[in-house]
Amino acid sequence: MNAELSAFLHRIRSAIDATLSELLPPHNEPPERIHQAMRYSTMDGGKRIRPALCTAAFTAYQQDWKPILPVAAAVEMIHCYSLIHDDLPAMDDDDFRRGKPSCHKQFDEAIAILAGDALLTLAFEVLAGSNQFPPERILRATSVLAAASGSSGGMIAGQVFDLESEGVRVTREQLEAIHRSKTAALIGAAVWIGSYLGEAPQTDLTSIQKFCERIGLAFQVIDDILDATDGHNRDEGKATYPSLYGLEESRAIARHLMKEARQALEPLGTRGKLLLAFCDYLEDRTN
Amino acid sequence: MNAELSAFLHRIRSAIDATLSELLPPHNEPPERIHQAMRYSTMDGGKRIRPALCTAAFTAYQQDWKPILPVAAAVEMIHCYSLIHDDLPAMDDDDFRRGKPSCHKQFDEAIAILAGDALLTLAFEVLAGSNQFPPERILRATSVLAAASGSSGGMIAGQVFDLESEGVRVTREQLEAIHRSKTAALIGAAVWIGSYLGEAPQTDLTSIQKFCERIGLAFQVIDDILDATDGHNRDEGKATYPSLYGLEESRAIARHLMKEARQALEPLGTRGKLLLAFCDYLEDRTN
Repeated sequence: MNAELSAFLHRIRSAIDATLSELLPPHNEPPERIHQAMRYSTMDGGKRIRPALCTAAFTAYQQDWKPILPVAAAVEMIHCYSLIHDDLPAMDDDDFRRGKPSCHKQFDEAIAILAGDALLTLAFEVLAGSNQFPPERILRATSVLAAASGSSGGMIAGQVFDLESEGVRVTREQLEAIHRSKTAALIGAAVWIGSYLGEAPQTDLTSIQKFCERIGLAFQVIDDILDATDGHNRDEGKATYPSLYGLEESRAIARHLMKEARQALEPLGTRGKLLLAFCDYLEDRTN
Repeated sequence: MNAELSAFLHRIRSAIDATLSELLPPHNEPPERIHQAMRYSTMDGGKRIRPALCTAAFTAYQQDWKPILPVAAAVEMIHCYSLIHDDLPAMDDDDFRRGKPSCHKQFDEAIAILAGDALLTLAFEVLAGSNQFPPERILRATSVLAAASGSSGGMIAGQVFDLESEGVRVTREQLEAIHRSKTAALIGAAVWIGSYLGEAPQTDLTSIQKFCERIGLAFQVIDDILDATDGHNRDEGKATYPSLYGLEESRAIARHLMKEARQALEPLGTRGKLLLAFCDYLEDRTN
Protein backbone atom coordinates (compact mmCIF):
# COMPACT_ATOMS: atom_id res chain seq x y z
CA MET A 1 0.00 0.00 0.00
CA ASN A 2 1.04 3.56 -0.82
CA ALA A 3 2.81 5.03 2.26
CA GLU A 4 0.76 8.21 2.28
CA LEU A 5 -2.52 6.28 2.22
CA SER A 6 -1.26 3.85 4.84
CA ALA A 7 -0.43 6.75 7.19
CA PHE A 8 -3.75 8.41 6.36
CA LEU A 9 -5.75 5.25 7.02
CA HIS A 10 -3.98 4.75 10.33
CA ARG A 11 -4.70 8.31 11.45
CA ILE A 12 -8.26 8.39 10.17
CA ARG A 13 -9.11 5.11 11.90
CA SER A 14 -7.87 6.42 15.24
CA ALA A 15 -9.80 9.63 14.74
CA ILE A 16 -13.01 7.79 13.79
CA ASP A 17 -12.68 5.38 16.71
CA ALA A 18 -12.18 8.29 19.11
CA THR A 19 -15.18 10.14 17.63
CA LEU A 20 -17.42 7.07 17.83
CA SER A 21 -16.41 6.45 21.42
CA GLU A 22 -17.23 10.05 22.29
CA LEU A 23 -20.62 9.98 20.55
CA LEU A 24 -21.86 6.61 21.83
CA PRO A 25 -23.56 6.64 25.25
CA PRO A 26 -21.15 5.50 28.01
CA HIS A 27 -21.33 1.75 28.73
CA ASN A 28 -22.45 2.43 32.31
CA GLU A 29 -25.34 4.73 31.37
CA PRO A 30 -28.70 3.03 32.02
CA PRO A 31 -30.05 0.96 30.43
CA GLU A 32 -26.51 -0.39 30.51
CA ARG A 33 -26.94 -3.54 28.43
CA ILE A 34 -28.01 -1.73 25.30
CA HIS A 35 -25.21 0.77 25.57
CA GLN A 36 -22.74 -2.04 26.06
CA ALA A 37 -24.20 -3.79 23.01
CA MET A 38 -23.95 -0.61 20.91
CA ARG A 39 -20.26 -0.27 21.84
CA TYR A 40 -19.61 -3.99 21.43
CA SER A 41 -20.80 -3.90 17.83
CA THR A 42 -19.24 -0.56 16.94
CA MET A 43 -15.90 -0.37 18.76
CA ASP A 44 -14.71 -3.65 17.32
CA GLY A 45 -11.70 -2.96 15.14
CA GLY A 46 -13.73 -2.52 11.96
CA LYS A 47 -11.84 -1.31 8.92
CA ARG A 48 -13.85 1.95 8.87
CA ILE A 49 -13.82 2.00 5.08
CA ARG A 50 -16.99 4.10 4.77
CA PRO A 51 -15.98 6.87 7.20
CA ALA A 52 -12.43 6.82 5.80
CA LEU A 53 -13.77 7.32 2.27
CA CYS A 54 -16.04 10.10 3.54
CA THR A 55 -13.11 11.84 5.22
CA ALA A 56 -10.81 11.34 2.22
CA ALA A 57 -13.42 12.97 -0.02
CA PHE A 58 -13.75 15.86 2.46
CA THR A 59 -9.99 16.43 2.70
CA ALA A 60 -9.82 16.75 -1.08
CA TYR A 61 -11.38 20.19 -0.48
CA GLN A 62 -10.59 21.06 3.14
CA GLN A 63 -7.34 21.02 5.09
CA ASP A 64 -8.76 20.20 8.52
CA TRP A 65 -10.76 16.99 8.72
CA LYS A 66 -12.14 17.57 12.24
CA PRO A 67 -15.55 18.96 11.15
CA ILE A 68 -16.39 15.88 9.07
CA LEU A 69 -15.58 13.32 11.78
CA PRO A 70 -19.03 13.22 13.44
CA VAL A 71 -20.66 12.89 10.01
CA ALA A 72 -18.26 10.08 9.06
CA ALA A 73 -18.96 8.42 12.43
CA ALA A 74 -22.71 8.64 11.74
CA VAL A 75 -22.17 6.78 8.45
CA GLU A 76 -20.30 4.07 10.35
CA MET A 77 -23.11 3.81 12.91
CA ILE A 78 -25.55 3.10 10.08
CA HIS A 79 -23.18 0.45 8.72
CA CYS A 80 -22.83 -1.17 12.16
CA TYR A 81 -26.60 -1.16 12.81
CA SER A 82 -27.10 -2.94 9.48
CA LEU A 83 -24.58 -5.64 10.43
CA ILE A 84 -26.30 -6.25 13.78
CA HIS A 85 -29.69 -6.67 12.15
CA ASP A 86 -28.31 -8.72 9.23
CA ASP A 87 -26.81 -11.22 11.67
CA LEU A 88 -30.13 -11.86 13.46
CA PRO A 89 -31.57 -15.40 13.32
CA ALA A 90 -34.51 -14.21 11.21
CA MET A 91 -32.08 -12.69 8.70
CA ASP A 92 -28.67 -14.18 7.82
CA ASP A 93 -28.46 -16.03 11.17
CA ASP A 94 -24.74 -15.51 11.72
CA ASP A 95 -23.32 -16.43 15.13
CA PHE A 96 -20.03 -14.68 14.52
CA ARG A 97 -18.98 -11.28 13.25
CA ARG A 98 -15.37 -10.20 12.87
CA GLY A 99 -14.20 -13.21 14.88
CA LYS A 100 -16.38 -12.70 17.94
CA PRO A 101 -19.96 -13.66 18.80
CA SER A 102 -22.46 -11.53 16.93
CA CYS A 103 -24.48 -9.04 18.98
CA HIS A 104 -27.50 -11.30 19.57
CA LYS A 105 -25.22 -14.15 20.68
CA GLN A 106 -23.22 -11.96 23.06
CA PHE A 107 -26.34 -10.25 24.44
CA ASP A 108 -29.75 -11.46 23.25
CA GLU A 109 -32.04 -10.93 20.29
CA ALA A 110 -34.14 -8.20 21.89
CA ILE A 111 -31.06 -6.19 22.82
CA ALA A 112 -29.56 -6.73 19.35
CA ILE A 113 -32.71 -5.45 17.62
CA LEU A 114 -32.87 -2.42 19.92
CA ALA A 115 -29.12 -1.72 19.74
CA GLY A 116 -29.42 -1.60 15.95
CA ASP A 117 -32.43 0.71 16.19
CA ALA A 118 -30.55 2.92 18.63
CA LEU A 119 -27.45 3.20 16.40
CA LEU A 120 -29.63 4.20 13.45
CA THR A 121 -31.44 6.78 15.58
CA LEU A 122 -28.18 8.11 17.03
CA ALA A 123 -26.69 8.49 13.54
CA PHE A 124 -29.45 10.94 12.62
CA GLU A 125 -29.21 12.71 15.99
CA VAL A 126 -25.48 13.23 15.39
CA LEU A 127 -26.07 14.53 11.86
CA ALA A 128 -28.75 16.96 13.06
CA GLY A 129 -26.32 18.23 15.69
CA SER A 130 -23.28 18.71 13.44
CA ASN A 131 -23.21 22.50 13.60
CA GLN A 132 -19.92 22.81 11.72
CA PHE A 133 -21.74 23.10 8.40
CA PRO A 134 -24.49 25.33 6.99
CA PRO A 135 -27.86 23.85 8.12
CA GLU A 136 -29.16 23.47 4.56
CA ARG A 137 -26.08 21.40 3.65
CA ILE A 138 -26.61 19.16 6.66
CA LEU A 139 -30.20 18.62 5.60
CA ARG A 140 -29.19 17.71 2.06
CA ALA A 141 -26.51 15.33 3.34
CA THR A 142 -29.07 13.75 5.68
CA SER A 143 -31.52 13.26 2.81
CA VAL A 144 -28.83 11.58 0.71
CA LEU A 145 -27.72 9.32 3.56
CA ALA A 146 -31.27 8.33 4.52
CA ALA A 147 -32.14 7.52 0.90
CA ALA A 148 -28.96 5.42 0.58
CA SER A 149 -29.95 3.52 3.74
CA GLY A 150 -33.65 3.09 2.97
CA SER A 151 -36.04 0.74 1.24
CA SER A 152 -36.30 2.63 -2.08
CA GLY A 153 -33.08 1.61 -3.80
CA GLY A 154 -31.01 1.88 -0.62
CA MET A 155 -29.38 -0.59 1.76
CA ILE A 156 -32.62 -1.98 3.18
CA ALA A 157 -33.91 -2.67 -0.34
CA GLY A 158 -30.64 -4.52 -0.98
CA GLN A 159 -31.07 -6.64 2.12
CA VAL A 160 -34.60 -7.65 1.07
CA PHE A 161 -33.45 -8.47 -2.49
CA ASP A 162 -30.57 -10.43 -0.98
CA LEU A 163 -32.87 -12.50 1.26
CA GLU A 164 -35.21 -13.11 -1.66
CA SER A 165 -32.34 -14.23 -3.88
CA GLU A 166 -31.30 -17.09 -1.59
CA GLY A 167 -31.41 -20.35 -3.53
CA VAL A 168 -32.84 -18.54 -6.57
CA ARG A 169 -31.01 -18.14 -9.86
CA VAL A 170 -30.80 -14.40 -10.53
CA THR A 171 -29.88 -12.67 -13.77
CA ARG A 172 -26.76 -10.52 -14.08
CA GLU A 173 -28.92 -7.40 -14.12
CA GLN A 174 -30.66 -8.50 -10.91
CA LEU A 175 -27.33 -9.24 -9.24
CA GLU A 176 -26.03 -5.79 -10.10
CA ALA A 177 -29.25 -4.23 -8.78
CA ILE A 178 -28.88 -6.15 -5.50
CA HIS A 179 -25.28 -5.05 -5.07
CA ARG A 180 -26.01 -1.46 -6.00
CA SER A 181 -28.60 -1.11 -3.28
CA LYS A 182 -27.07 -3.44 -0.68
CA THR A 183 -23.59 -1.92 -0.57
CA ALA A 184 -22.87 0.59 -3.29
CA ALA A 185 -25.55 3.08 -2.20
CA LEU A 186 -24.11 3.65 1.29
CA ILE A 187 -20.47 3.66 0.10
CA GLY A 188 -21.39 6.14 -2.60
CA ALA A 189 -23.30 8.33 -0.16
CA ALA A 190 -20.30 8.36 2.20
CA VAL A 191 -18.02 9.69 -0.53
CA TRP A 192 -20.55 12.12 -1.95
CA ILE A 193 -21.43 13.61 1.45
CA GLY A 194 -17.74 14.08 2.28
CA SER A 195 -17.07 16.07 -0.88
CA TYR A 196 -20.39 17.95 -0.72
CA LEU A 197 -19.80 19.09 2.86
CA GLY A 198 -16.23 19.93 1.83
CA GLU A 199 -17.85 22.33 -0.66
CA ALA A 200 -16.60 20.63 -3.80
CA PRO A 201 -17.66 22.60 -6.89
CA GLN A 202 -20.63 21.22 -8.85
CA THR A 203 -18.46 19.95 -11.74
CA ASP A 204 -16.36 17.91 -9.29
CA LEU A 205 -19.50 16.58 -7.62
CA THR A 206 -20.63 15.21 -10.98
CA SER A 207 -17.31 13.39 -11.43
CA ILE A 208 -17.48 12.15 -7.86
CA GLN A 209 -21.00 10.86 -8.42
CA LYS A 210 -19.63 8.68 -11.23
CA PHE A 211 -16.74 7.57 -9.01
CA CYS A 212 -19.19 6.64 -6.23
CA GLU A 213 -21.22 4.39 -8.49
CA ARG A 214 -18.16 2.47 -9.69
CA ILE A 215 -16.30 2.18 -6.38
CA GLY A 216 -19.43 1.11 -4.50
CA LEU A 217 -20.14 -1.72 -6.89
CA ALA A 218 -16.46 -2.69 -7.11
CA PHE A 219 -16.34 -2.87 -3.33
CA GLN A 220 -19.12 -5.46 -3.20
CA VAL A 221 -17.66 -7.52 -6.07
CA ILE A 222 -14.34 -7.60 -4.21
CA ASP A 223 -16.13 -8.53 -0.98
CA ASP A 224 -17.85 -11.40 -2.82
CA ILE A 225 -14.47 -12.58 -4.14
CA LEU A 226 -12.94 -12.45 -0.65
CA ASP A 227 -15.87 -14.36 0.83
CA ALA A 228 -15.61 -17.01 -1.89
CA THR A 229 -11.86 -17.48 -1.34
CA ASP A 230 -11.56 -17.25 2.47
CA GLY A 231 -13.45 -20.49 3.01
CA HIS A 232 -16.06 -19.03 5.37
CA ASN A 233 -18.91 -19.49 2.92
CA ARG A 234 -20.95 -16.79 4.62
CA ASP A 235 -22.78 -16.27 1.37
CA GLU A 236 -23.69 -19.87 0.62
CA GLY A 237 -26.81 -20.01 -1.53
CA LYS A 238 -26.76 -16.27 -2.10
CA ALA A 239 -26.40 -14.44 -5.36
CA THR A 240 -22.76 -13.35 -5.66
CA TYR A 241 -20.46 -12.41 -8.50
CA PRO A 242 -18.26 -15.52 -8.14
CA SER A 243 -21.31 -17.80 -8.08
CA LEU A 244 -22.65 -16.24 -11.28
CA TYR A 245 -19.46 -15.36 -13.17
CA GLY A 246 -16.76 -17.52 -11.60
CA LEU A 247 -13.71 -16.16 -9.75
CA GLU A 248 -11.61 -15.15 -12.75
CA GLU A 249 -14.32 -13.17 -14.49
CA SER A 250 -15.33 -11.59 -11.16
CA ARG A 251 -11.75 -10.37 -10.73
CA ALA A 252 -11.83 -8.93 -14.23
CA ILE A 253 -15.13 -7.16 -13.50
CA ALA A 254 -13.69 -5.67 -10.30
CA ARG A 255 -10.60 -4.48 -12.20
CA HIS A 256 -12.76 -2.92 -14.89
CA LEU A 257 -14.97 -1.11 -12.35
CA MET A 258 -11.88 0.17 -10.54
CA LYS A 259 -10.46 1.44 -13.82
CA GLU A 260 -13.68 3.34 -14.48
CA ALA A 261 -13.63 4.66 -10.92
CA ARG A 262 -10.07 5.99 -11.40
CA GLN A 263 -11.02 7.56 -14.74
CA ALA A 264 -13.96 9.33 -13.10
CA LEU A 265 -11.48 11.05 -10.76
CA GLU A 266 -9.25 12.41 -13.52
CA PRO A 267 -10.98 15.84 -13.69
CA LEU A 268 -10.14 16.33 -9.99
CA GLY A 269 -6.39 16.35 -10.67
CA THR A 270 -4.24 16.15 -7.53
CA ARG A 271 -7.31 16.60 -5.31
CA GLY A 272 -8.26 13.04 -6.19
CA LYS A 273 -4.97 11.64 -4.86
CA LEU A 274 -6.24 10.03 -1.66
CA LEU A 275 -9.36 8.63 -3.30
CA LEU A 276 -7.15 7.15 -6.03
CA ALA A 277 -4.93 5.56 -3.43
CA PHE A 278 -8.09 4.09 -1.90
CA CYS A 279 -8.78 2.31 -5.19
CA ASP A 280 -5.33 0.71 -4.93
CA TYR A 281 -5.99 -0.31 -1.35
CA LEU A 282 -9.39 -1.86 -2.10
CA GLU A 283 -8.04 -3.64 -5.17
CA ASP A 284 -5.02 -4.98 -3.25
CA ARG A 285 -7.39 -6.82 -0.93
CA THR A 286 -8.18 -9.36 -3.65
CA ASN A 287 -4.56 -10.22 -4.39
CA MET B 1 -66.13 14.88 23.26
CA ASN B 2 -66.12 18.60 22.54
CA ALA B 3 -67.56 19.12 19.03
CA GLU B 4 -64.71 21.35 17.89
CA LEU B 5 -62.11 18.75 18.88
CA SER B 6 -64.15 15.96 17.36
CA ALA B 7 -64.26 17.80 14.03
CA PHE B 8 -60.56 18.64 14.32
CA LEU B 9 -59.59 15.04 15.08
CA HIS B 10 -61.61 13.81 12.15
CA ARG B 11 -59.98 16.26 9.75
CA ILE B 12 -56.48 15.84 11.09
CA ARG B 13 -56.70 12.05 10.86
CA SER B 14 -57.71 12.22 7.21
CA ALA B 15 -54.93 14.68 6.51
CA ILE B 16 -52.32 12.55 8.30
CA ASP B 17 -53.49 9.38 6.57
CA ALA B 18 -53.28 11.10 3.19
CA THR B 19 -49.80 12.45 3.98
CA LEU B 20 -48.54 9.07 5.15
CA SER B 21 -49.89 7.39 2.05
CA GLU B 22 -48.14 9.95 -0.12
CA LEU B 23 -44.82 9.63 1.71
CA LEU B 24 -44.65 5.82 1.94
CA PRO B 25 -43.22 4.02 -1.10
CA PRO B 26 -46.01 2.58 -3.30
CA HIS B 27 -46.92 -1.01 -2.47
CA ASN B 28 -45.88 -2.16 -5.94
CA GLU B 29 -42.42 -0.59 -5.82
CA PRO B 30 -39.72 -3.29 -5.53
CA PRO B 31 -38.91 -4.83 -3.18
CA GLU B 32 -42.68 -5.06 -2.94
CA ARG B 33 -43.03 -7.10 0.23
CA ILE B 34 -41.31 -4.57 2.47
CA HIS B 35 -43.32 -1.70 1.04
CA GLN B 36 -46.50 -3.67 1.56
CA ALA B 37 -45.40 -4.38 5.15
CA MET B 38 -44.64 -0.70 5.79
CA ARG B 39 -48.11 0.25 4.57
CA TYR B 40 -49.77 -2.65 6.39
CA SER B 41 -48.39 -1.46 9.72
CA THR B 42 -48.89 2.26 9.12
CA MET B 43 -52.15 2.64 7.17
CA ASP B 44 -54.12 0.68 9.73
CA GLY B 45 -56.67 2.99 11.27
CA GLY B 46 -54.41 4.04 14.13
CA LYS B 47 -55.69 6.86 16.34
CA ARG B 48 -52.86 9.17 15.19
CA ILE B 49 -52.65 10.71 18.64
CA ARG B 50 -49.00 11.81 18.27
CA PRO B 51 -49.35 13.53 14.89
CA ALA B 52 -52.67 15.03 15.98
CA LEU B 53 -51.03 16.51 19.10
CA CYS B 54 -48.15 17.78 16.95
CA THR B 55 -50.57 19.45 14.56
CA ALA B 56 -52.74 20.86 17.37
CA ALA B 57 -49.65 22.45 18.93
CA PHE B 58 -48.66 23.89 15.53
CA THR B 59 -52.12 25.34 14.85
CA ALA B 60 -51.97 27.18 18.17
CA TYR B 61 -49.54 29.50 16.34
CA GLN B 62 -50.27 29.05 12.63
CA GLN B 63 -53.50 29.15 10.67
CA ASP B 64 -52.59 26.67 7.94
CA TRP B 65 -51.59 23.22 9.15
CA LYS B 66 -50.29 21.94 5.79
CA PRO B 67 -46.59 22.63 6.44
CA ILE B 68 -46.53 20.53 9.62
CA LEU B 69 -48.19 17.44 8.10
CA PRO B 70 -45.01 15.74 6.82
CA VAL B 71 -43.34 16.35 10.21
CA ALA B 72 -46.36 14.94 12.04
CA ALA B 73 -46.36 11.96 9.67
CA ALA B 74 -42.66 11.36 10.44
CA VAL B 75 -43.51 11.20 14.15
CA GLU B 76 -46.20 8.61 13.37
CA MET B 77 -43.70 6.57 11.29
CA ILE B 78 -41.41 6.39 14.33
CA HIS B 79 -44.33 5.29 16.48
CA CYS B 80 -45.34 2.61 13.95
CA TYR B 81 -41.78 1.29 13.58
CA SER B 82 -41.58 0.92 17.36
CA LEU B 83 -44.82 -1.11 17.42
CA ILE B 84 -43.55 -3.47 14.69
CA HIS B 85 -40.32 -4.13 16.56
CA ASP B 86 -42.04 -4.36 19.98
CA ASP B 87 -44.34 -7.09 18.64
CA LEU B 88 -41.44 -9.30 17.45
CA PRO B 89 -41.06 -12.74 19.07
CA ALA B 90 -37.77 -11.69 20.71
CA MET B 91 -39.52 -8.68 22.26
CA ASP B 92 -43.16 -8.68 23.45
CA ASP B 93 -44.08 -11.56 21.11
CA ASP B 94 -47.53 -10.27 20.16
CA ASP B 95 -49.34 -12.05 17.33
CA PHE B 96 -51.97 -9.33 17.00
CA ARG B 97 -51.96 -5.57 16.74
CA ARG B 98 -55.09 -3.46 16.44
CA GLY B 99 -57.17 -6.56 15.74
CA LYS B 100 -55.12 -7.96 12.87
CA PRO B 101 -52.00 -10.14 12.67
CA SER B 102 -48.89 -8.23 13.67
CA CYS B 103 -46.38 -7.44 10.93
CA HIS B 104 -44.16 -10.50 11.48
CA LYS B 105 -47.22 -12.80 11.45
CA GLN B 106 -48.67 -11.27 8.29
CA PHE B 107 -45.27 -11.20 6.53
CA ASP B 108 -42.29 -12.74 8.30
CA GLU B 109 -39.76 -11.76 10.94
CA ALA B 110 -37.08 -10.59 8.51
CA ILE B 111 -39.52 -8.34 6.68
CA ALA B 112 -40.89 -7.01 9.98
CA ILE B 113 -37.41 -6.10 11.24
CA LEU B 114 -36.54 -4.41 7.94
CA ALA B 115 -39.92 -2.67 7.60
CA GLY B 116 -39.37 -1.14 11.06
CA ASP B 117 -35.85 -0.08 10.09
CA ALA B 118 -37.17 1.42 6.86
CA LEU B 119 -39.93 3.42 8.60
CA LEU B 120 -37.39 4.85 11.05
CA THR B 121 -35.06 5.76 8.18
CA LEU B 122 -37.89 7.26 6.12
CA ALA B 123 -39.00 9.40 9.08
CA PHE B 124 -35.62 11.13 9.11
CA GLU B 125 -35.55 11.40 5.32
CA VAL B 126 -38.94 13.14 5.43
CA LEU B 127 -37.79 15.51 8.18
CA ALA B 128 -34.62 16.41 6.29
CA GLY B 129 -36.73 17.15 3.22
CA SER B 130 -39.38 19.32 4.91
CA ASN B 131 -38.40 22.58 3.26
CA GLN B 132 -41.34 24.54 4.66
CA PHE B 133 -39.31 25.60 7.69
CA PRO B 134 -35.97 27.32 8.25
CA PRO B 135 -33.24 24.64 8.02
CA GLU B 136 -31.90 25.36 11.50
CA ARG B 137 -35.37 24.78 12.97
CA ILE B 138 -35.68 21.46 11.13
CA LEU B 139 -32.32 20.41 12.54
CA ARG B 140 -33.33 21.32 16.10
CA ALA B 141 -36.65 19.48 15.70
CA THR B 142 -34.78 16.45 14.33
CA SER B 143 -32.40 16.46 17.30
CA VAL B 144 -35.31 16.58 19.73
CA LEU B 145 -37.20 13.80 17.95
CA ALA B 146 -34.13 11.56 17.67
CA ALA B 147 -33.31 12.04 21.36
CA ALA B 148 -36.92 11.23 22.31
CA SER B 149 -36.69 8.04 20.23
CA GLY B 150 -33.23 6.93 21.33
CA SER B 151 -31.50 4.88 23.99
CA SER B 152 -30.52 7.78 26.29
CA GLY B 153 -33.78 8.49 28.09
CA GLY B 154 -35.88 8.04 24.94
CA MET B 155 -38.28 5.41 23.63
CA ILE B 156 -35.65 2.71 23.09
CA ALA B 157 -34.41 3.14 26.66
CA GLY B 158 -38.00 2.70 27.80
CA GLN B 159 -38.39 -0.50 25.83
CA VAL B 160 -35.22 -1.96 27.39
CA PHE B 161 -36.35 -0.93 30.91
CA ASP B 162 -39.74 -2.43 30.13
CA LEU B 163 -38.26 -5.78 29.04
CA GLU B 164 -36.01 -5.81 32.09
CA SER B 165 -38.94 -5.10 34.41
CA GLU B 166 -40.86 -8.22 33.39
CA GLY B 167 -41.59 -10.31 36.46
CA VAL B 168 -39.51 -7.94 38.61
CA ARG B 169 -40.96 -5.74 41.35
CA VAL B 170 -40.06 -2.16 40.48
CA THR B 171 -40.27 0.89 42.70
CA ARG B 172 -42.63 3.78 41.97
CA GLU B 173 -39.67 5.90 40.87
CA GLN B 174 -38.51 3.17 38.48
CA LEU B 175 -42.02 2.81 37.05
CA GLU B 176 -42.23 6.52 36.39
CA ALA B 177 -38.79 6.46 34.72
CA ILE B 178 -39.88 3.57 32.47
CA HIS B 179 -43.05 5.38 31.42
CA ARG B 180 -41.28 8.68 30.90
CA SER B 181 -38.87 7.18 28.42
CA LYS B 182 -41.15 4.54 26.86
CA THR B 183 -44.05 6.81 25.95
CA ALA B 184 -43.88 10.29 27.40
CA ALA B 185 -40.67 11.26 25.57
CA LEU B 186 -42.10 10.77 22.07
CA ILE B 187 -45.51 12.27 22.92
CA GLY B 188 -43.78 15.26 24.49
CA ALA B 189 -41.48 15.66 21.49
CA ALA B 190 -44.47 15.59 19.13
CA VAL B 191 -46.12 18.48 20.97
CA TRP B 192 -42.93 20.46 21.45
CA ILE B 193 -41.87 20.15 17.80
CA GLY B 194 -45.32 21.28 16.64
CA SER B 195 -45.22 24.45 18.71
CA TYR B 196 -41.53 25.09 18.01
CA LEU B 197 -41.99 24.84 14.24
CA GLY B 198 -45.09 27.00 14.63
CA GLU B 199 -42.73 29.62 16.07
CA ALA B 200 -44.22 29.73 19.54
CA PRO B 201 -42.46 32.38 21.65
CA GLN B 202 -39.91 31.13 24.17
CA THR B 203 -42.16 31.77 27.19
CA ASP B 204 -44.89 29.62 25.64
CA LEU B 205 -42.36 26.90 24.82
CA THR B 206 -41.45 26.73 28.51
CA SER B 207 -45.12 26.25 29.45
CA ILE B 208 -45.52 23.70 26.67
CA GLN B 209 -42.47 21.81 27.90
CA LYS B 210 -44.23 21.41 31.27
CA PHE B 211 -47.46 20.37 29.50
CA CYS B 212 -45.53 17.77 27.48
CA GLU B 213 -44.08 16.14 30.57
CA ARG B 214 -47.48 15.80 32.23
CA ILE B 215 -49.54 14.75 29.21
CA GLY B 216 -46.95 12.18 28.11
CA LEU B 217 -46.93 10.47 31.46
CA ALA B 218 -50.71 10.74 31.84
CA PHE B 219 -51.11 9.11 28.43
CA GLN B 220 -49.18 6.02 29.49
CA VAL B 221 -50.97 5.77 32.86
CA ILE B 222 -54.30 5.91 30.99
CA ASP B 223 -53.04 3.30 28.52
CA ASP B 224 -52.09 1.04 31.44
CA ILE B 225 -55.57 1.49 32.93
CA LEU B 226 -57.21 0.64 29.60
CA ASP B 227 -55.03 -2.44 29.19
CA ALA B 228 -55.87 -3.58 32.72
CA THR B 229 -59.62 -3.17 32.17
CA ASP B 230 -60.07 -4.38 28.59
CA GLY B 231 -59.22 -7.96 29.49
CA HIS B 232 -56.45 -8.40 26.90
CA ASN B 233 -53.70 -8.61 29.49
CA ARG B 234 -51.09 -7.51 27.00
CA ASP B 235 -48.98 -6.27 29.86
CA GLU B 236 -49.07 -9.36 32.03
CA GLY B 237 -46.00 -9.50 34.24
CA LYS B 238 -44.97 -6.00 33.26
CA ALA B 239 -44.61 -3.01 35.50
CA THR B 240 -47.76 -0.91 35.12
CA TYR B 241 -49.54 1.70 37.22
CA PRO B 242 -52.54 -0.55 38.00
CA SER B 243 -50.25 -3.43 39.03
CA LEU B 244 -48.33 -1.17 41.40
CA TYR B 245 -51.03 1.26 42.60
CA GLY B 246 -54.32 -0.52 41.87
CA LEU B 247 -56.96 0.80 39.46
CA GLU B 248 -58.52 3.45 41.67
CA GLU B 249 -55.26 5.13 42.63
CA SER B 250 -54.05 4.90 39.02
CA ARG B 251 -57.15 6.79 37.91
CA ALA B 252 -56.47 9.43 40.57
CA ILE B 253 -52.86 9.74 39.37
CA ALA B 254 -54.02 10.18 35.77
CA ARG B 255 -56.52 12.85 36.84
CA HIS B 256 -53.85 14.66 38.83
CA LEU B 257 -51.38 14.62 35.91
CA MET B 258 -54.08 15.89 33.56
CA LYS B 259 -54.90 18.70 35.98
CA GLU B 260 -51.24 19.71 36.01
CA ALA B 261 -51.13 19.47 32.22
CA ARG B 262 -54.12 21.81 31.93
CA GLN B 263 -52.59 24.25 34.41
CA ALA B 264 -49.37 24.31 32.38
CA LEU B 265 -51.40 25.57 29.40
CA GLU B 266 -52.99 28.51 31.27
CA PRO B 267 -50.37 31.07 30.15
CA LEU B 268 -51.25 30.28 26.51
CA GLY B 269 -54.80 31.61 26.90
CA THR B 270 -57.08 30.79 23.98
CA ARG B 271 -54.16 29.45 21.96
CA GLY B 272 -54.20 26.41 24.24
CA LYS B 273 -57.82 25.57 23.39
CA LEU B 274 -57.26 22.55 21.16
CA LEU B 275 -54.56 21.10 23.40
CA LEU B 276 -56.92 21.52 26.38
CA ALA B 277 -59.65 19.72 24.50
CA PHE B 278 -57.14 16.94 23.87
CA CYS B 279 -56.78 16.50 27.62
CA ASP B 280 -60.55 15.97 27.83
CA TYR B 281 -60.42 13.47 25.00
CA LEU B 282 -57.55 11.46 26.50
CA GLU B 283 -59.16 11.50 29.94
CA ASP B 284 -62.53 10.42 28.54
CA ARG B 285 -60.92 7.22 27.30
CA THR B 286 -60.72 5.87 30.85
CA ASN B 287 -64.39 6.44 31.62
